[in-house]
Amino acid sequence: MSELRWDPLKDEWIILTQGHSRRPQDFTLRQPEESDRECPLCSGRENLTSPELYAWRPGGSAPNQPGWKVRVIPNRSPVLHVEGELDNRAEGLYDLMNGIGAHEVIVEAPEHHVQMADLSVAHLTEVLKAYRSRMLDLRNDFRLRYLYVFKNFGREASAKLCHSHSQLIAVPMLPPLIKKELDNCRDHYHRKERCLICDLLRQERKAKDRVIIDDGKFLAYAPYASRFPFETLIAPLTHMHDFCQLSDPQLQQLASVLRSTLLRMRQVLRDPAYSFSLHSAPPRHRQGGQCADSSDLADYYHWHIEIHPKLTQKAGFEWGSGFHINPTAPEEAATYMRKVSVRED
Amino acid sequence: MSELRWDPLKDEWIILTQGHSRRPQDFTLRQPEESDRECPLCSGRENLTSPELYAWRPGGSAPNQPGWKVRVIPNRSPVLHVEGELDNRAEGLYDLMNGIGAHEVIVEAPEHHVQMADLSVAHLTEVLKAYRSRMLDLRNDFRLRYLYVFKNFGREASAKLCHSHSQLIAVPMLPPLIKKELDNCRDHYHRKERCLICDLLRQERKAKDRVIIDDGKFLAYAPYASRFPFETLIAPLTHMHDFCQLSDPQLQQLASVLRSTLLRMRQVLRDPAYSFSLHSAPPRHRQGGQCADSSDLADYYHWHIEIHPKLTQKAGFEWGSGFHINPTAPEEAATYMRKVSVRED
Repeated sequence: MSELRWDPLKDEWIILTQGHSRRPQDFTLRQPEESDRECPLCSGRENLTSPELYAWRPGGSAPNQPGWKVRVIPNRSPVLHVEGELDNRAEGLYDLMNGIGAHEVIVEAPEHHVQMADLSVAHLTEVLKAYRSRMLDLRNDFRLRYLYVFKNFGREASAKLCHSHSQLIAVPMLPPLIKKELDNCRDHYHRKERCLICDLLRQERKAKDRVIIDDGKFLAYAPYASRFPFETLIAPLTHMHDFCQLSDPQLQQLASVLRSTLLRMRQVLRDPAYSFSLHSAPPRHRQGGQCADSSDLADYYHWHIEIHPKLTQKAGFEWGSGFHINPTAPEEAATYMRKVSVRED
Repeated sequence: MSELRWDPLKDEWIILTQGHSRRPQDFTLRQPEESDRECPLCSGRENLTSPELYAWRPGGSAPNQPGWKVRVIPNRSPVLHVEGELDNRAEGLYDLMNGIGAHEVIVEAPEHHVQMADLSVAHLTEVLKAYRSRMLDLRNDFRLRYLYVFKNFGREASAKLCHSHSQLIAVPMLPPLIKKELDNCRDHYHRKERCLICDLLRQERKAKDRVIIDDGKFLAYAPYASRFPFETLIAPLTHMHDFCQLSDPQLQQLASVLRSTLLRMRQVLRDPAYSFSLHSAPPRHRQGGQCADSSDLADYYHWHIEIHPKLTQKAGFEWGSGFHINPTAPEEAATYMRKVSVRED
């Protein structure tokens, strides 16, 4: 059983996993890449995974058989486990709870070497539908306070399998950085009765110099205080707190912007490793404890996607101080990203 | 000129450097290691660096000549620059100030391949004296709100020069993670009239299972909610907020504990890359703006050193969510670190 531990000096919860590499001799920074001959995510090897939780099967094939184009399965080495009770308790000055949660893998394509940026808009739309479907399903578990969808691509982003996939980790508390965003958005709303992210999007559209894509529905831009070179944020121009409220046509429009952003990044940065994460409002049922006032969550939060290419390595100063050092002005990054021409689907 | 930028969504200041690698074609994750034939930190190449700011010259040699054993020089590619005004200003919803600060390099030994763990206790004491001396000197600059001493060792910790060195970055505001520690310690003190870190040290000494070294003056232990495997914290057992108040004999005692910790880490983890950072109270003259109540800083804060071996790579989930995932229980890490025998000086 994993544990969640809290320490009053840092005021941060950490996840202590069990059963992974953990002895001194077990650490290697570079893991051997899994070859396609043994990849458990490939079509035809469905017997190597747990039964699927969701699949897009356009030809109507049977579950856990080939024929799928997108497939969601439980992670074989989950960071958190779905069985058990939280058992939130103190240990002297410290806090401790059991590592309750869920950890799923969204396999984005049946072929081993296809990457997310290679997918058609229609196919990428189905990946986004898989996110939405799994998030909606996991909301029924009241123990799960946040549903975090993310993707690591490439070795520098620590992707362990090179078969294209995203992940969903459901956690029993608000992740620290999500809580901070929610708090900042709530404070802004209470002062101004406006959504902070709507305000930021308006300012960015007016300034133009950090905008990458503006299709009238979504804005992709390089944030003013980008923590990483070529950091990119994608948000809907119309206020919406919850990713799961997106209709199918809206998901398709988002897929088009996401695809274009990934293709631009690939061309400008020569196929970089990257991570992305989906920041959406937490399920309504359990915010009370951590979000002081959740009654107007739909007014003050605004979902978005953050993409971080892995171009620099963080060192002691950044880890210890919390300052990020970014060597590329977002205005310059946006110019490179805007100017490059990519093949539309 | 570097810039400090703030964005209301993240409520974080980032440092945007200028004049470093920044175009898409400039990014390479692995930089070529500098060979000892061109290392500017080696004895005999004093002409390759700016004039020294401090040196330990036991034989009484002249400044900027060989004969030194510890030497402090300005960083040749500083993250922040000492000249100019802060010019703190708004840009719409954003904040911006000039990158005023200082960036110094503490060269720990004249020889190229000697590492910090190889130094004698007497020599390491002189390195710590160099930290103290530079911190005391930089306190005279009222623009500098925090003096951050840290060290990166090894490629995985992003050390660009393999010649053993530490760094001091003076910044015009409290670093986010230091501010959080100060706030947490202040809140604890205001509730309980006790120092939080004194409380933690007492609990750790009683529990024993996370203790690595307890020499009656300093405690080295694996924090309960360690964010990284084999994370180690060293703190004085007697309450003290300011590293610069350590006497020479106390610095020597600290050098002995630090050396033993680094030797243990080297043996247990086979010469890992690591970072360490010194967390000391900010200079008194400028806390007003950021630390709500600084009058009792000496009562509530407690300086310490944090050491992080670089054994795992942080990926999308951790960067985006703010949760750290640690695969090694600190109790197990402490057992390995405690049991190994190291050569005393």
